[in-house]
Amino acid sequence: MLGQVSRTSFKPGLKLFIDLRTKQGIRFLSSDGESHKRQRPQPRSLNLSIPSYVVWGSGTNVGKTLISAGICNFLSKDQARMVGRRVVVILHDRRGFPEDSDADTVAAVCGGRSEVGEHASQILINGPEVSYFPDLLHQDQACNVLARTEFAWSHAVGPHLAVQMEGRAVSDEQILQRLQEELSTFGERGGGAKKFAIIETAGAVNSPAPSGTSQVDLLRDLRLPGILIGDGQIGGISSTVSGKGMGTGGGGEKDWRAMESLLLRGIDISCIVMLDMGLRNEEAVANMVKKGFGGYTGKSIPVFGLPPLPRRRSNFSAAALRSWFLQCQDKFEKVTKLMEADHKERLQLLASAEERARSSVWWPFTQHDLVQSVTHIDARAGEDWWVYSKGSMSREAPPALLRWMDGAASWWTQRMDVGDMAMFCSQRTRMRQLYRQEKEDGGGLTERILKGPARGWGSRVFFSDDGSTAVEVALKMAMRKFMRTHSLLEKSPEELSKLKVRIMGLKGSYHGDTLGAMNAQAPSVFTGFKQMPWYDPKGVWLDIPTLAIVKGEWRIDLSAIPQAGKQLLTCRSVRCPPWPRRTESISRHISTTCPMRRLISCDQQVFDAYRQNIKIGALVLEIAMHGAGGMDFIDPLFQRILAEEATKRRIPVIADEVFSGMWRLGMQTACSMGGFHPDIACYSKLLTGGTVPLALTVASEDVFQAFTGSEKSEALLHGHSYTAHPIGCSVAIAAFDIFSDPELNPNLSAKQDKLVELWPMDKVVALSQRAVVKRVVPLGTVLVLELQTVGSSEQAFEGYASSLAKPYVEKLRERGIFLRPLGNVMYVMVTPTTSPSKCREILDLIADVIPA
Amino acid sequence: MLGQVSRTSFKPGLKLFIDLRTKQGIRFLSSDGESHKRQRPQPRSLNLSIPSYVVWGSGTNVGKTLISAGICNFLSKDQARMVGRRVVVILHDRRGFPEDSDADTVAAVCGGRSEVGEHASQILINGPEVSYFPDLLHQDQACNVLARTEFAWSHAVGPHLAVQMEGRAVSDEQILQRLQEELSTFGERGGGAKKFAIIETAGAVNSPAPSGTSQVDLLRDLRLPGILIGDGQIGGISSTVSGKGMGTGGGGEKDWRAMESLLLRGIDISCIVMLDMGLRNEEAVANMVKKGFGGYTGKSIPVFGLPPLPRRRSNFSAAALRSWFLQCQDKFEKVTKLMEADHKERLQLLASAEERARSSVWWPFTQHDLVQSVTHIDARAGEDWWVYSKGSMSREAPPALLRWMDGAASWWTQRMDVGDMAMFCSQRTRMRQLYRQEKEDGGGLTERILKGPARGWGSRVFFSDDGSTAVEVALKMAMRKFMRTHSLLEKSPEELSKLKVRIMGLKGSYHGDTLGAMNAQAPSVFTGFKQMPWYDPKGVWLDIPTLAIVKGEWRIDLSAIPQAGKQLLTCRSVRCPPWPRRTESISRHISTTCPMRRLISCDQQVFDAYRQNIKIGALVLEIAMHGAGGMDFIDPLFQRILAEEATKRRIPVIADEVFSGMWRLGMQTACSMGGFHPDIACYSKLLTGGTVPLALTVASEDVFQAFTGSEKSEALLHGHSYTAHPIGCSVAIAAFDIFSDPELNPNLSAKQDKLVELWPMDKVVALSQRAVVKRVVPLGTVLVLELQTVGSSEQAFEGYASSLAKPYVEKLRERGIFLRPLGNVMYVMVTPTTSPSKCREILDLIADVIPA
Repeated sequence: MLGQVSRTSFKPGLKLFIDLRTKQGIRFLSSDGESHKRQRPQPRSLNLSIPSYVVWGSGTNVGKTLISAGICNFLSKDQARMVGRRVVVILHDRRGFPEDSDADTVAAVCGGRSEVGEHASQILINGPEVSYFPDLLHQDQACNVLARTEFAWSHAVGPHLAVQMEGRAVSDEQILQRLQEELSTFGERGGGAKKFAIIETAGAVNSPAPSGTSQVDLLRDLRLPGILIGDGQIGGISSTVSGKGMGTGGGGEKDWRAMESLLLRGIDISCIVMLDMGLRNEEAVANMVKKGFGGYTGKSIPVFGLPPLPRRRSNFSAAALRSWFLQCQDKFEKVTKLMEADHKERLQLLASAEERARSSVWWPFTQHDLVQSVTHIDARAGEDWWVYSKGSMSREAPPALLRWMDGAASWWTQRMDVGDMAMFCSQRTRMRQLYRQEKEDGGGLTERILKGPARGWGSRVFFSDDGSTAVEVALKMAMRKFMRTHSLLEKSPEELSKLKVRIMGLKGSYHGDTLGAMNAQAPSVFTGFKQMPWYDPKGVWLDIPTLAIVKGEWRIDLSAIPQAGKQLLTCRSVRCPPWPRRTESISRHISTTCPMRRLISCDQQVFDAYRQNIKIGALVLEIAMHGAGGMDFIDPLFQRILAEEATKRRIPVIADEVFSGMWRLGMQTACSMGGFHPDIACYSKLLTGGTVPLALTVASEDVFQAFTGSEKSEALLHGHSYTAHPIGCSVAIAAFDIFSDPELNPNLSAKQDKLVELWPMDKVVALSQRAVVKRVVPLGTVLVLELQTVGSSEQAFEGYASSLAKPYVEKLRERGIFLRPLGNVMYVMVTPTTSPSKCREILDLIADVIPA
Repeated sequence: MLGQVSRTSFKPGLKLFIDLRTKQGIRFLSSDGESHKRQRPQPRSLNLSIPSYVVWGSGTNVGKTLISAGICNFLSKDQARMVGRRVVVILHDRRGFPEDSDADTVAAVCGGRSEVGEHASQILINGPEVSYFPDLLHQDQACNVLARTEFAWSHAVGPHLAVQMEGRAVSDEQILQRLQEELSTFGERGGGAKKFAIIETAGAVNSPAPSGTSQVDLLRDLRLPGILIGDGQIGGISSTVSGKGMGTGGGGEKDWRAMESLLLRGIDISCIVMLDMGLRNEEAVANMVKKGFGGYTGKSIPVFGLPPLPRRRSNFSAAALRSWFLQCQDKFEKVTKLMEADHKERLQLLASAEERARSSVWWPFTQHDLVQSVTHIDARAGEDWWVYSKGSMSREAPPALLRWMDGAASWWTQRMDVGDMAMFCSQRTRMRQLYRQEKEDGGGLTERILKGPARGWGSRVFFSDDGSTAVEVALKMAMRKFMRTHSLLEKSPEELSKLKVRIMGLKGSYHGDTLGAMNAQAPSVFTGFKQMPWYDPKGVWLDIPTLAIVKGEWRIDLSAIPQAGKQLLTCRSVRCPPWPRRTESISRHISTTCPMRRLISCDQQVFDAYRQNIKIGALVLEIAMHGAGGMDFIDPLFQRILAEEATKRRIPVIADEVFSGMWRLGMQTACSMGGFHPDIACYSKLLTGGTVPLALTVASEDVFQAFTGSEKSEALLHGHSYTAHPIGCSVAIAAFDIFSDPELNPNLSAKQDKLVELWPMDKVVALSQRAVVKRVVPLGTVLVLELQTVGSSEQAFEGYASSLAKPYVEKLRERGIFLRPLGNVMYVMVTPTTSPSKCREILDLIADVIPA
């Protein structure tokens, strides 16, 4: 009979059966016990065809295992369903039988088979024998249930303590990986049989895993649905059901917390099941769940009460247990059907999501007629996504979730894993806010900004909602400041009506989609008459010198500058020191004979070209890197000289750091790359770490003073409804601290003024030497790779329309990394906290897909 | 000795002492026991000069009472502090001695006095005698500690169960009110003595209060700071400290959850204290707290372990207990000093907040030179705020928090109490989102919008960040649609460059602060050259007829329309049926001979006045009510006729419902008041119920189709980084459901298509008859009251600059309701779920301050 029903246990004095015929078998490991740490390829998909549920406990000793067994038992006994095997993966077997027992209980109760994983098997060598349910064993030859113990330690304590006592540590990643592998193996076993997976965790929702992480924080990565086992005072079974027990009201409060913890982590719960000990706990829970979560979870969560367990004797009576199962049969049926129905609904929602979105959503920057595939993200897991794949009947591929790395930083906003935790903070501090009459303030955020990126020049912080509105505010500020400085407001209304205030900007800069921001950028595909008939460019647009690694060398590219040839140079591209050293040369000195200064003398003259009724009222710079404009690295020295020239003429300088600020390019403020201060700066995107919209416009005291006066109409009459909304401010504070605190961000350099180099330079240089690669820019969290086009590269918007990068991007998606192509430009963007080793991995993947 | 040390208890068989000489005394109530329900004036302030801490338990039986006693004991014994009395308010005494005991324990241990509140005293009549700490009683004549039991029932069960068994229910409001009163009384007692208040709750953080609400949800209203008593397995005291106990890891997981519950509700925790049972629970907790919350709570939360309690015998040994207190002395000192320091820091932060904000924040729409007082909101409590008042030395008023009702709906966005709970939802569903390549969608939100306010015409939803961006998007949509419909895009570039596309708008409409939205509104104080030199109005602006109750009658006001007199009427104001009946007449029929149609025939002609190179490309309407423009109720019939005329000419109609939509004016969509459908509609503000920025632009299928084609450049190239951010979408879904679900919104009318009348009409009519009142408009959640100006009312922006409403608004603030004046207009805005009785109350307060 060995093999058909096998049993394992890790408790002293128990008999041990081991199934040597399972596919994985059991490897008896060398005594170092380290083999579980060896690298396995990480499973990159979760099979969706199998309902996979986590059974969560609202406490220890609440009956998790028995209820799991009851569900398995029902499934295996139900004739209509007896078409395959179901599995219970018990991650860690830790407590005594029967309240919070192990795979054996489940296997014995259901007449199934118990097996052990590699880690758990390590303690079997000296394991004792088992003999618990002699009358239940071997009863069912069909062996529909496979109960598996994956990780185990000898001591009957929590896994975090067991690790301290016995060693054999397991990391969170190892557990997740093992679980994914097991679910995938289970999916393959037994062919097309109908299957059902139940995962039981060690202890309760918030009990520590071996690493000390709480179970729910560990497993949220997979976002499997679950059921919650409530607390019906099962502790009372071991004694008598006393009035004392009634007093605690324990069930209610624990379930509430467990529910809260689960919901907070985005975990769906099909139902709550609890042992009824005559305390009416299930009623109280049903009421609380309804009161607290009804209307917010999208559906009500049913609560099932099961009859009390038979009292425990020295040896549990199997007959009593069997009769209890019989008694619960109808409840187990209901619970099981609910789980199956929820699973089906989830699949339907996933399968129909694309069609629903296609028919009702108007996507930004999207030609709907050209949309081929829609990427549906079911969940986030750290810096990765779980992306829905509907599978294929012909290739026998079931619907699945595929794991992709979010290589475009969620549209440049950066999706931080910590964003979830930041919500705690938001809840705490949303209570703290400042109103002046009716206006809110960001409290600690202003302080951080003024002492951080705006240190040395910034004095006031104005709040709005996105980069575009921040720039609109900046323009209003700058123009008023300019008019005050140059006494233009004292002119007569007639003179004023003739006055035209313009800006100086850069070709290729992109400041946003609202009309004011559009008018502050040069004509492009985004600004045509078709897009907005009111577009009316209000600027003088300069050509820019760019920096990049070209065929192994850092070079300044002057090809976009028509006057370059005449002024100084016969070639269009000049070799220069590597960027990090260039920073130093900028911060040392810039002589007036500096070639760059001479180069842009024409630009300088532009400032003075307008007199009388046309004025340059602001210099507007997208700092250091053009985002939407093609990921060009603008020479910071060039921007610095421009800023100096503007300041000399008392023209305010606006630094648009919406894309480039907040560590995006490796420094807290991108202006510091050029070593200059603006008068006004705009921040957004990374500011809130990818959670909610918030934008800041920071101004110097001089700018602020241009709006003071005795009349309200002199004030800056601008402000959106959710100005400085507390949730945004709180999340921004959290993100700011995470980026800037060396304890939280290991990527900070020793002096904490910049990030360490994330992209290994040798690999970057090698990549730049590939034939199809035109240039590479590794800058902070961004890696840009421009592909060689056949035609002229000066036609920037052909570049945007180009689909040169697309095939490479598609290949990378197959390898599990999501990038966005930008015409013939590919780029990767990571978080300021992403490890350099991860960046190296990404770079290797890219090198794989680009032809040599 | 009676009176100096008195003790009460409600457990059978205990002796009872009652102090009859306390100030409140103890009133023996009639047996109906109902007197606690009588109305008392609600205390409207919280004294900040007394440190007031809640002692939270992470479970029952964790040592809350003993630790409270230890803190009181330390405070009362410390000579330097022995300057007054401290209080323990025990809300509900429910469990056996000593683990989770009662006021008696505290009083006995500290040599203080125990007293009972009115509710608790009701069960003293037949109460038994007490004799517990004979050797501890009477030891301290100074009586520095006053321990008070506020609510009690005879049965030793949770209060929610006790209520079911004994009656004598207490509502959440009654508990909060009693607690505020008691803290206030305590503040007055004993003159200038140094005081300290500790509030102990019944059971654990999430244990049910008498009403069933969890303790933390009940007390969050006051947002008192607290300390958390962790679980060190005190349950183990009653038996032996066994290995079994170690296995649960109970302390860690419970504290984690309790912390989570507290932080989620915005409650500050000074430290965690727990009894050390040799399980190193305090270490595990310290690690988890650091790992989970470090960096997010703004400071690390210290964890203190106290030595194990002496084992309990049948009668607890007072000597052993005293020795334990001695042993813990240094820890209690640390805890107490931390609480005092945190309290001091809180006071300092509150006191300095105004100055910090004044020096670093640039407030929107604010002339900083004119700012007199800054309102600092410390916390929200439902629809109310706790506003900081620094007090006054001269008037002996201590710093305090004053309770104000948020009568301006947090800048029209509506602060819903449910917003907090909606965060659960956001956490859950933020995981669910749709990307097309890289774009997100609001999932269930689009569905709700298209089946809700946009039913019958809307087909596509576009996401942006605020009302202003939503209008910019709408303008781009409308103009493209217009140009496609009228084949303008087929013209040559030369012809196109001559083409001017304009809009038709209303005088007084306000669509936002970004340039495109500004250009779509008529010149005003917000649009001058000083504000934005690029402002260039692109519209034809119409005068509007308005509706209001004037001196008791609904009237149409035509005074703003110059042609009215010529066309039809000799008077400037016409009596009309009350607004609700007017809806009916609109929905019946509008004949071509309708006077209103004739009235605006001039306006109709405007559509056709432009030919050739100037075109009206869109009709832009702020629907039903001008917000910033002066809270004018625009006749819906007028807007309907305009919309019909536009549609006839195939000019798209944009409905700006940013302010008026989503039940603001009593209906889900304000367009339904005029009974017409737009082609494009904008929603924001109430959309997310006052939590985070999100805006929608909804379009008809025809509009959407104007952007399809084979080229990307034909698409709508607009989109902000946080497009359809999942948190915003989830919160919007929650808000939507709460507003629209009759189970969640009791204000929905029987047909669920509108809100019931919130403002009692008899009072509104009476108010309109006051001499200083020019007009009143009760509309959905809004009540507008315009004051009679001396000069001409046609000068709308004199109205905005007027300060006529200011004195009334200030008087109302003294009565605890916060309104914003808008020149000579006062308005109140409530939530769509605010009860009519609350509205009646507000109306009464207003009637009080307005001269008769």
